[in-house]
Amino acid sequence: MASDKQPLRIGLIGFGCVGQGFYDIVQQQPGLGLAVARIAVKNPDKPRPLPADRFTYHADELLADATLDVLVEVIDDAAEAFRLVSAALRQGRRVVTANKAMLARHLPELVQLEQNFGGALLYEAAVCGSIPVIRTLDAYFSHEPLRAVLGIFNGSSNYVLTRMSEEGSDYGPALAEAQAQGFAETDPALDMGAFDPRSKAVILAAHAYGVFLNPDEVLNLGIEAIGAADIAHAAARGQKIKVVASVQRLPNGRVAALVTPQLLGPESPLFTVEHEFNGVLVEGEYAGPQFLRGRGAGGHPTGSAVLADVLALRRGLRYGYAKRPTAPAVQPADELALDVYLRHADVGVLREVLTWLELPAAALRTDVHGVYATGVVPLLRLVQWRDELRAAGVFVARRGEVRLTEVAEAAGSGHYQVDEARLA
Amino acid sequence: MASDKQPLRIGLIGFGCVGQGFYDIVQQQPGLGLAVARIAVKNPDKPRPLPADRFTYHADELLADATLDVLVEVIDDAAEAFRLVSAALRQGRRVVTANKAMLARHLPELVQLEQNFGGALLYEAAVCGSIPVIRTLDAYFSHEPLRAVLGIFNGSSNYVLTRMSEEGSDYGPALAEAQAQGFAETDPALDMGAFDPRSKAVILAAHAYGVFLNPDEVLNLGIEAIGAADIAHAAARGQKIKVVASVQRLPNGRVAALVTPQLLGPESPLFTVEHEFNGVLVEGEYAGPQFLRGRGAGGHPTGSAVLADVLALRRGLRYGYAKRPTAPAVQPADELALDVYLRHADVGVLREVLTWLELPAAALRTDVHGVYATGVVPLLRLVQWRDELRAAGVFVARRGEVRLTEVAEAAGSGHYQVDEARLA
Repeated sequence: MASDKQPLRIGLIGFGCVGQGFYDIVQQQPGLGLAVARIAVKNPDKPRPLPADRFTYHADELLADATLDVLVEVIDDAAEAFRLVSAALRQGRRVVTANKAMLARHLPELVQLEQNFGGALLYEAAVCGSIPVIRTLDAYFSHEPLRAVLGIFNGSSNYVLTRMSEEGSDYGPALAEAQAQGFAETDPALDMGAFDPRSKAVILAAHAYGVFLNPDEVLNLGIEAIGAADIAHAAARGQKIKVVASVQRLPNGRVAALVTPQLLGPESPLFTVEHEFNGVLVEGEYAGPQFLRGRGAGGHPTGSAVLADVLALRRGLRYGYAKRPTAPAVQPADELALDVYLRHADVGVLREVLTWLELPAAALRTDVHGVYATGVVPLLRLVQWRDELRAAGVFVARRGEVRLTEVAEAAGSGHYQVDEARLA
Repeated sequence: MASDKQPLRIGLIGFGCVGQGFYDIVQQQPGLGLAVARIAVKNPDKPRPLPADRFTYHADELLADATLDVLVEVIDDAAEAFRLVSAALRQGRRVVTANKAMLARHLPELVQLEQNFGGALLYEAAVCGSIPVIRTLDAYFSHEPLRAVLGIFNGSSNYVLTRMSEEGSDYGPALAEAQAQGFAETDPALDMGAFDPRSKAVILAAHAYGVFLNPDEVLNLGIEAIGAADIAHAAARGQKIKVVASVQRLPNGRVAALVTPQLLGPESPLFTVEHEFNGVLVEGEYAGPQFLRGRGAGGHPTGSAVLADVLALRRGLRYGYAKRPTAPAVQPADELALDVYLRHADVGVLREVLTWLELPAAALRTDVHGVYATGVVPLLRLVQWRDELRAAGVFVARRGEVRLTEVAEAAGSGHYQVDEARLA
């Protein structure tokens, strides 16, 4: 650890939006006692805002440099990020990462490496930008039994939805605007297809419930097929459509997670989370409902979260993962149901979709904006048909939280007793 | 520190709403590794929910008991709380307190004792019940330059305002209801007169800016004189009245704090903070605006915050007060101005109030609810006349944030440069 006189030497891997935001904040505050000693980037030909001699093009040089006190990894490439972060942890180093896709995929292994080699890994910037949700769940709520953690975890898709809602514009122009504003990742499919918020839900589940979810097993439905008609349908009911990621404890004590568009009324705190902002609701058994809102994207807000992690590492902070020893089971999708809204401009397609999801033809409805369908569908069907739904351009939104099927609820009442006993 | 097998032994001083809430949570979760070993209360004659042999009536016995690992002080009496907490810190002990009035008055001395004797003092439950605002400011925003920290910090008065707004009822019945619901402290004057949120603002200023404010020098105006006419006046403009505590950095780099009722529109995140909930807005230079909302009162929510502190002490957490070395000066009231709304049923009284506050007679206005006045007044006048305003039953609400007078702004531009240079 650096002394008070010796600045903490940081090796920065990646100099995109987040990397530059972090660098900028450190440069503007010399009193922090931090020095970005070395910066590694991939592409030697890309124009950079700093002189070329500030950069190396081989991140491995930073791994080999024992004079660096902390490594900050903020690159896009999840596979390369995993290679670098896991190698650094094998050296017992202190590491900050913002790569949610990498974390969601490799969290169990990384936590194991941290433990085995005595390093430390923090990643507040990976979830909800500037909002300190990971440390709040990990430390403050370390022993608070939680009913649910849910929210808007993706600033890009929320920006698109807000602009569609404000302007009555269609999906394409709103997406182009989000990209022009710098609120979209390199690959917009990760944001718009809800892969990005799914990664974040998986990360939060580790701290909120001690559960390491497999991201592939978490249903994610995006907004690629949304149209002005859907926004208008919601608005006519005083509602908005938001992409909501939820991780919750079911009445049987198990944990369920999913990410889908959702129709929300003004009674939801998420209703007023607009543009690139993120919002998180935490429902504590004793603490009651907590709501946090802040910027979910942007160089400075996310860079500020990276800085907070670097300073926390200097103070010796590590995540506690306190709920790992009492982690509940994950609820399989086959006992879950979801009340949904479905739309496709072609009624023929919509009719076929009803058969995929075990809905009767009577589920079809008509309003001034066209034909749509509503009904309670087995979650397993949505999981099994999600690629087809995406390919067919069907827009799907839920109208409430996921719940146990009636059959499961009746059969599973024993689980609930067991769980409550553990809490009591 | 207790080993994994040996539970942490807690000495609990006070068994009111918060003490019982904390005790209850600990009892319901045996897996926490905590034991409430001894409980001290003041009154031997009061009926208690536990057998009499669980209690001692001499808190000093807990101070003398070296087998206790942590002392939790949750009594109402600020003077006695200070005596106990300071004595415990002189022993180098680990202490949790929820007594905001005591903290606001004695924070510099307590921090010094903590430092001198190697103990630790945490007090998350003292501000905004279940919301982790102190640790968020102290650790997560330890080096984030903040523009402002403001919010609704008092659940009791917010409950009264919400009920008045919902029911159109007057102040008296709404207060009686808040007391019946258990959302009022022993002495409602502390809540309704905005002394309680002032204490909380003083505590937050220490973590947000490194400034130890003198509570007596922070203007606090309450809601004792509010009437249905004021609520109706606000509602007619699409606004609500909330008691808002603000600590902010002015353009001259100095810090100003005050607590008053405020007229707020739906654009404010505080607009939807209702009943006993609290809400905090943190405006970060880099992180952007952050908003936190949660239960600000109640045994379980506040007890949950006490528990989080006890567990944090077990992990070795101490507050960092990182901004102490760079604490800005406090802005004297004589260069500040505030845009206010004033009402008294008696127009004669209101006319006299105008002279107290240097407002012209033309400041008087009339609407369907009667006569009121508006205008920009010197903050110093409000400070000097606050007792008279309270005694006369004048309701005062601000219509925006405090600001430097035009004269001060022109003269103070040098300060601004200095401050920005320090940040840059």
